Amino acid sequence: MVGVDLGGTNVRASAVRPDGSVMGFASRPTEVVKGTSSILARIEEVVEKASRCGREEGARLVALGVAVPGPLEAVSGVVHQPPNFPQWRRFPLKKHLEEIFRLPIFLDNDGNCAAVGERWLGAASGCRHVVVLTLGTGVGGGLIVDGELVRGAEGFAGEVGHVVVASDGAPCNCGGRGCLEAYSSATGLKRMLAERLTARELAEVLDEDGRLDVKAAAAKARRGDQRCRQAFTDAGRFLGAALASFVNLFNPQMVVIGGGMAGAWGLIVPVARAEMLSRAFARPARRVRILKSALGGRAGVMGAAAIAWSGLARQARGGRCFL
Amino acid sequence: MVGVDLGGTNVRASAVRPDGSVMGFASRPTEVVKGTSSILARIEEVVEKASRCGREEGARLVALGVAVPGPLEAVSGVVHQPPNFPQWRRFPLKKHLEEIFRLPIFLDNDGNCAAVGERWLGAASGCRHVVVLTLGTGVGGGLIVDGELVRGAEGFAGEVGHVVVASDGAPCNCGGRGCLEAYSSATGLKRMLAERLTARELAEVLDEDGRLDVKAAAAKARRGDQRCRQAFTDAGRFLGAALASFVNLFNPQMVVIGGGMAGAWGLIVPVARAEMLSRAFARPARRVRILKSALGGRAGVMGAAAIAWSGLARQARGGRCFL
Repeated sequence: MVGVDLGGTNVRASAVRPDGSVMGFASRPTEVVKGTSSILARIEEVVEKASRCGREEGARLVALGVAVPGPLEAVSGVVHQPPNFPQWRRFPLKKHLEEIFRLPIFLDNDGNCAAVGERWLGAASGCRHVVVLTLGTGVGGGLIVDGELVRGAEGFAGEVGHVVVASDGAPCNCGGRGCLEAYSSATGLKRMLAERLTARELAEVLDEDGRLDVKAAAAKARRGDQRCRQAFTDAGRFLGAALASFVNLFNPQMVVIGGGMAGAWGLIVPVARAEMLSRAFARPARRVRILKSALGGRAGVMGAAAIAWSGLARQARGGRCFL
Repeated sequence: MVGVDLGGTNVRASAVRPDGSVMGFASRPTEVVKGTSSILARIEEVVEKASRCGREEGARLVALGVAVPGPLEAVSGVVHQPPNFPQWRRFPLKKHLEEIFRLPIFLDNDGNCAAVGERWLGAASGCRHVVVLTLGTGVGGGLIVDGELVRGAEGFAGEVGHVVVASDGAPCNCGGRGCLEAYSSATGLKRMLAERLTARELAEVLDEDGRLDVKAAAAKARRGDQRCRQAFTDAGRFLGAALASFVNLFNPQMVVIGGGMAGAWGLIVPVARAEMLSRAFARPARRVRILKSALGGRAGVMGAAAIAWSGLARQARGGRCFL
């Protein structure tokens, strides 16, 4: 099985055995600006390269699992203009990939794939009730309820970054206001730092593309910069409010946190945990474990492969998905 | 099957056939102040009375389903001090009922039971992805994902009234802050009215126990009292923020709204729908239907019976719950 993770920066593919071990891996820049046919060609390229080792072992490619940025109608495989792929307004990506590969294609949003990956081989291995959060440029993730990925009626579910934490809060990239992503993503943290630091101080913690360098900002906070520390504390507080909602809604055994912001774990997660405990029902709040992602950036590609495995099995049985 | 709805005011029981038709019904005041043995005696009494007609038809009582106010560990049947039953700190209600009735007892929180009831026989009949909200003194309800009630790791899940909508918001009865219940319940509305009206004006829309008379307040708003109308609008706005979270998390086909506040539908729900549409991802937001509860106060007792049916079936099959 080959899992593909189509990101705004890179497209990656892994050929994965049923036990989760990897036969081959490939990665290439996505170069979204070059347009759709170039992106599709890049997908073909990494799938070809990753599956080469598999073919040498005698394995035949039977399906593809593809992780795509949402919003995404997972069932039909139609992509609804993710911020990183603005030209894809209602783009039937699944149909295009089926035509290229002549294979069953299983699409899901990258957050859902990361959740399935963490549950299959990562921090949540074997857990039946899990919330996975990826705190990166945005906030992605997914929900696993009673062992099943929550997809909803058309496959739009699991947008855990877009749970409202402050109804009159900051504008969010999704068009809403006061979502978790507006506070506990690198983008949200950058905004909160910009409100506190001078332009020159802010520039010191940005990378050459003007994006927040979370490590540099965390280092500044750890060196004792109180304004910087306060911004991380705020990111943690809002994360804690969202965790309280998740605990009250799902009573999960575990919350798994990954993404670049997880690199500042000590500045964010203890604050979030305390905030969650002060808000959520006591029993489920005390029992939930908060763990760091074990697969990191590989969660999406491994989860995409898992989704293809279970999709094939579902087709064979005519029944429900398993993980 | 007999379903029991144990409320803070009344305890009700219905003997229900497998097709959902009712053989017998009974209701008695709970009189919480008289203590645990009196409450248990009242349950025995209503069950006996409701099942009498069933026995005349030759039906044998095989199990009881009981709806209880949360927080509740549904799996073990331990009740964790619901506001209406303050003496029940970690009370093993299921164990007590098993000793009284010598029958399998299936407990769930009243919100979850209402959700199952609405899905079985009410507004959400046959729907696989549903959020049910009961906007009463508090906000209860439950989540149905892919046809299954969401119970979580220990059965605490589905506390839809305690999703955070305003992280620095008003204190909530649960001990948290800024939960949906703090705004879109009768209690929340009363607080928002108290902030706007004079004490004398407020007294005009309270009942003799000092609780908000939602109908009277709605009538005042409809007569043109702008402050009153604004309080309903605020209740609707916060409800809309929570609906946006639900749409983004679950991509439900339907949201079912019941409880006393649903009597002011026109003052609350259009505002909530507009707010939800302005926040949530466009495709799932446009598709979700918002309907009024069809079972009203009967949802809990019918759902409790359904939970007992499916619990028995699950025990028989050793497998998962169905609805």
